[in-house]
Amino acid sequence: MDWESLATKKRSDLEASIPPEWRIKTHPADGSVMSFPRTSGHLTLEELVITEYSATELVQKLATGKLTSVAVTRAFCKRAALAHQLTNCIHEFFPDIALARAQYLDGYLAEHKKPIGPLHGLPISLKDQLRVKGLDTTMGYVSWIGKKDKDNSVLTTMLLNAGAVLYVKTSVPQSLMVCETINNIHGRTTNPRNKNWSCGGSSGGEGAIVALRGGVIGVGTDIGGSIRVPAAFNFLYGLRPSHGRLPYAKMANSMEGQETIHSEPWSYDSKVIPMPWRRDEEEAIKAKISSSGLTLGYYSCDGNVLPHPPVLRAVQTVVDKLSEAGHTVHPWEPYKHAHGVSLANRIYASDGGTDIFGVLKASGEPAIPNIADLVSPNLPKMNVNELWDVQLQKWDYQCEYLSKIRQFEKELDKELDAIIAPITPTAAIRHNQFKYYGYASAINILDFTSVVVPVTYADKAIDIKNEKLKPLSDIDETVQAEYDPAEYHGAPVAVQIIGRRLTEERVMCIAEEVGRLLGNEVTQ
Amino acid sequence: MDWESLATKKRSDLEASIPPEWRIKTHPADGSVMSFPRTSGHLTLEELVITEYSATELVQKLATGKLTSVAVTRAFCKRAALAHQLTNCIHEFFPDIALARAQYLDGYLAEHKKPIGPLHGLPISLKDQLRVKGLDTTMGYVSWIGKKDKDNSVLTTMLLNAGAVLYVKTSVPQSLMVCETINNIHGRTTNPRNKNWSCGGSSGGEGAIVALRGGVIGVGTDIGGSIRVPAAFNFLYGLRPSHGRLPYAKMANSMEGQETIHSEPWSYDSKVIPMPWRRDEEEAIKAKISSSGLTLGYYSCDGNVLPHPPVLRAVQTVVDKLSEAGHTVHPWEPYKHAHGVSLANRIYASDGGTDIFGVLKASGEPAIPNIADLVSPNLPKMNVNELWDVQLQKWDYQCEYLSKIRQFEKELDKELDAIIAPITPTAAIRHNQFKYYGYASAINILDFTSVVVPVTYADKAIDIKNEKLKPLSDIDETVQAEYDPAEYHGAPVAVQIIGRRLTEERVMCIAEEVGRLLGNEVTQ
Repeated sequence: MDWESLATKKRSDLEASIPPEWRIKTHPADGSVMSFPRTSGHLTLEELVITEYSATELVQKLATGKLTSVAVTRAFCKRAALAHQLTNCIHEFFPDIALARAQYLDGYLAEHKKPIGPLHGLPISLKDQLRVKGLDTTMGYVSWIGKKDKDNSVLTTMLLNAGAVLYVKTSVPQSLMVCETINNIHGRTTNPRNKNWSCGGSSGGEGAIVALRGGVIGVGTDIGGSIRVPAAFNFLYGLRPSHGRLPYAKMANSMEGQETIHSEPWSYDSKVIPMPWRRDEEEAIKAKISSSGLTLGYYSCDGNVLPHPPVLRAVQTVVDKLSEAGHTVHPWEPYKHAHGVSLANRIYASDGGTDIFGVLKASGEPAIPNIADLVSPNLPKMNVNELWDVQLQKWDYQCEYLSKIRQFEKELDKELDAIIAPITPTAAIRHNQFKYYGYASAINILDFTSVVVPVTYADKAIDIKNEKLKPLSDIDETVQAEYDPAEYHGAPVAVQIIGRRLTEERVMCIAEEVGRLLGNEVTQ
Repeated sequence: MDWESLATKKRSDLEASIPPEWRIKTHPADGSVMSFPRTSGHLTLEELVITEYSATELVQKLATGKLTSVAVTRAFCKRAALAHQLTNCIHEFFPDIALARAQYLDGYLAEHKKPIGPLHGLPISLKDQLRVKGLDTTMGYVSWIGKKDKDNSVLTTMLLNAGAVLYVKTSVPQSLMVCETINNIHGRTTNPRNKNWSCGGSSGGEGAIVALRGGVIGVGTDIGGSIRVPAAFNFLYGLRPSHGRLPYAKMANSMEGQETIHSEPWSYDSKVIPMPWRRDEEEAIKAKISSSGLTLGYYSCDGNVLPHPPVLRAVQTVVDKLSEAGHTVHPWEPYKHAHGVSLANRIYASDGGTDIFGVLKASGEPAIPNIADLVSPNLPKMNVNELWDVQLQKWDYQCEYLSKIRQFEKELDKELDAIIAPITPTAAIRHNQFKYYGYASAINILDFTSVVVPVTYADKAIDIKNEKLKPLSDIDETVQAEYDPAEYHGAPVAVQIIGRRLTEERVMCIAEEVGRLLGNEVTQ
């Protein structure tokens, strides 16, 4: 079968998985579809209430039997189906499996009078990169269609062991290697606030589904912004943990509930560090927040690409709020970020595209356009010694960065708690315009922990275009040319809070404090 | 200058660094030189007493001013000079720098009434892989002679910050990639118990110097047995920590004192996990030791190569002692070790020897013979995708091994605390006979924590050769042929205690318990 036919078949299978009674008859007009689930009448009042609880509220109500898993699962399946019809955010939809699982869990609770685990009955959406036994994981590749997984990913197993209900695998770009979400099977996933904007990527389907409350917590991965960019573009929180600190979870409106699914993942996955959630770290930073205050750094520009006015305003807003609240915020000089970004790009492209283009060749499908920005089939392939050299350069860069932090701390005679920075140079971006990954990828190269915090929305009345800017670089010129206050009006804008490697507890507490100061709604 | 002249010059520089009054006039006869420092009259009684204290005793006496750092440093420098003349274990010797440093530290203590750090005044020997500003790090390569280091290694800096005195860099094999110690600059380092035996490698100089108490604690690295093998061949304890758990320290007679030098190394080295010494882990395992007892696995043979009789007896001795003491010891089936060893060998050789043979070519020196066993210049060079594939296979193998452990624990309904196993198939080996790295390298591939515990000495009266063995493999045939009870009589034999990744606290406590049951002298 040619690749187009395979893709068409896969799309119609997906269509068929949505029950007729969950189908949207009258599609909304252009513009934001954020309020559609609330106003269209597809969901009952109970389903609306359920799908707008936080994860923390849901697990409490599920564990105590105040809500059944069947009711919660049905509500999220239904709302996910709406989200998909509005934004095209799903690759695999399996409400029947989910409801059977929910029924089992309800039975278990009734019989044993206790939940099966800390996530008992909670529906959790997975990026279409995690394997679920018996289902496809296409990662947006046509040639992977129909290769049913024989095993769960470790994280899948652990979520199930913790009591989660899986019901949906969400959309990703072909290969995962770009920060927009488009592939030759399902097409493009759009931003629920404006169909002209990207939902981000690679965990773009997670961004859209959680924004529309078709899911309450999403699970993704982030090697170059893949969790943080979709979070930023959908006004969500998103955690990029350091390597070895599973789970790679993305959070919606709530930063709690993470530790509960740490059931010794290091007994399953050799790359996971045996480091349980550290309450003492959490308490230390909370004590600092409520006493002497935090010591923070910030930067608005990494020296390569100047962010658009809405992003500059977002960073300044966070700095002002933190300062007003008694925290100390110092300018941070980004250390050789151009070098860090170049290392990241060399590592992404180190096999000269062999892997990705081999998979494309297997079906004959073309590459999506954006891939060429990062991985081109004409790139020279490194040899092992060249790769080792880049890895050594990465290690050197990481150690130099640590040295800069120590120097900064020595000068202040204070510990640096985190750094505030842009996560992208733009608000939620127009399609095919995501060109500069450096704000995200420099942090990946450092393997620093980072949490994205939603801050504001682009506002054409405030975020005036500066027509006189001199570009810092070719890529900066491209990025600057993209800014159009009218086209970006209303687009979500975020910052990231960056901590050193494996500082998840601290950085999440700081993100919570920033969110509190910004007045972000936290439904717990 | 040709490579022979460069090497000769380097050797004579080293000779010249030993003051005439520390030179041995009458060399001992063939046989063990272990008692030479005690009996030859080169050391004063005070120097003998000082150099036979444990590291723990020394740091206590140094911190309280009961011993001066100058006295301790002079004693160890003198004994190190003897050790070198007996076994050829030193690459760089710098007593003047060490004594100046010791004098500074004594002055500091007198002035401030407190030590500069937890290792105040303690001489520490470094493997010639760690960089010390202003000195050579040849790693046994002729072409690296004279390239004075511009910077310290992070670990060097941290040892200095903790108050250590550096005085010697010890011998390693050319390239570090073998488990014997020979190079074209300094020749061969011999085992202090018998000059026909190897001191092990790559941290072989550390093994010899610490065995002769020319050092009290050594610092090495271990990617394929490089700490554990020299420890085993010199009747010493040796810790191979998991990746990311600095320091890579080797212990002599005492396993204490490690935590003290953890002064947040993760602020300096990006690869270090922010995990301080975990007292709770230590206490948990100690509580188990003194109450319900440990649950252990053991294996005598990995399925590839059957160890020589002294090693089989050592494993059985440890199993018996543990069982008698009320611990539970179950047979452990080594899981696909041949596959693990093959992965290790493929990773060692992944660049087809480009790196090593490039360095050799720079001076024109020949390769030492043993390198060809692991890295040959005629090996095919992997490409990046092949390397990624091997890395993935490694990850899979690690996760499968974890799964086997979980299964074992499920069947017993108990946690597996550690596994007892050989570290080499032989006692301290005759020169040029180290052929099989698998007992060490399988554990490196798993990134498990391992501690070597000395057990016994080969005994020709007990360890009879079994002439009827059918070889398990070609390499097994080679290894079996090497056994000769008379030639190995008296050679040190050890086992390793293996724990999962990053279980240093637990595994060291278990090693201590095993040492206690064996009646190993622990001078603390």
